[in-house]
Amino acid sequence: MLKGAVSYHCAVSGERAMRTVDHERVEERRRQIRRAALTCFRRSGFHQASMAEICDEAGMSPGNLYRYYDSKEAIIEAICEDERRELTRRFAAVGSSADLLDAMLELAGDAMAASTQPGKRRLAIEILAEAVRNRRVGEIVRQHNAALLAVCVETIERAQALGQADPGLDPAIAASLLMGAAEGLGIRLALQPHLDREACIAAFKTLVRRFLRPQR
Amino acid sequence: MLKGAVSYHCAVSGERAMRTVDHERVEERRRQIRRAALTCFRRSGFHQASMAEICDEAGMSPGNLYRYYDSKEAIIEAICEDERRELTRRFAAVGSSADLLDAMLELAGDAMAASTQPGKRRLAIEILAEAVRNRRVGEIVRQHNAALLAVCVETIERAQALGQADPGLDPAIAASLLMGAAEGLGIRLALQPHLDREACIAAFKTLVRRFLRPQR
Repeated sequence: MLKGAVSYHCAVSGERAMRTVDHERVEERRRQIRRAALTCFRRSGFHQASMAEICDEAGMSPGNLYRYYDSKEAIIEAICEDERRELTRRFAAVGSSADLLDAMLELAGDAMAASTQPGKRRLAIEILAEAVRNRRVGEIVRQHNAALLAVCVETIERAQALGQADPGLDPAIAASLLMGAAEGLGIRLALQPHLDREACIAAFKTLVRRFLRPQR
Repeated sequence: MLKGAVSYHCAVSGERAMRTVDHERVEERRRQIRRAALTCFRRSGFHQASMAEICDEAGMSPGNLYRYYDSKEAIIEAICEDERRELTRRFAAVGSSADLLDAMLELAGDAMAASTQPGKRRLAIEILAEAVRNRRVGEIVRQHNAALLAVCVETIERAQALGQADPGLDPAIAASLLMGAAEGLGIRLALQPHLDREACIAAFKTLVRRFLRPQR
């Protein structure tokens, strides 16, 4: 009860404060918290990391931090939104390419190179485990995935319409399979640190190309 | 120190007891503990489940349970061994098939159908998260994967030698990629419960076939 009252008080006073401070400064504060949270999630695991630890890492008091995010889940939600915005922007650029499949593979290769860095992998696995356990995080991850999946499905459909992808494939199933394959490769790279990352990403592109291209 | 001494005492008296009891009864007890542990890991998560909870679930005293397994990690190790033994047996059967690729895909399809049941998926993600966090579990998972990977690599090499798979592929990279894709699909199915499992497994087989078959 007390905790709820305190959060409510923080949220209300936070709202008031946000109206007065400059929008850019609020955004900078939010970014600072997200960075601190990422450090804590990587170090302690998502489940184990506490809001107190995140406050320490960000060098902020709880009263201050709770103005911006009222829970770990809210922070994860914002981190997922960052990533989704970035990927949506990049997928939109694919739409204007002459060879959709090639452009999509370039994008997928870059995204994998970025996401298979050991620190990022650990975090992704942490969030996955939490998604299975925690209903709210599960919902965030599901929505995040649904948004990414939608742009992926749309790209495959357009490639099919242009004769650049096998029209016999179900776009939704193919997109889920390929997103899963990309995630799975990330896990492999996390578990087998001696795997040649470059070679794996190149092989992944071969796999996607052979799967999607029109069959003769 | 005391805990160590107690474990040692249990291990020693356990060893003595095991020499006297019938081997089959020991195996039955071990299976009972593994089943109870699986229930607890699914319910509470691997990290959160305690040995005390596993004792309760198995209906055994700690002194009795510690005779068989001295830690959660030892139980996970045994569970991985069960699975590895079963898969190795099945892969060995593939070796005698006329069409290696077909036989391997049958096996992969069956394994995926079994492993993508929601309860199994949750457990697999739990163990993965723990593998990144806990050195001993990480080692167990790595060894488990290395063993599975080895049979998978060997099968691809044999298919290449028989002209049934593209000789231009690196068998180790291809095997890692496909094992990753299978794992990733499992995660997809856990996160998107409305995905058509049968259709996904069929599409996975198409993907593997198109990737591995000799290219013209």
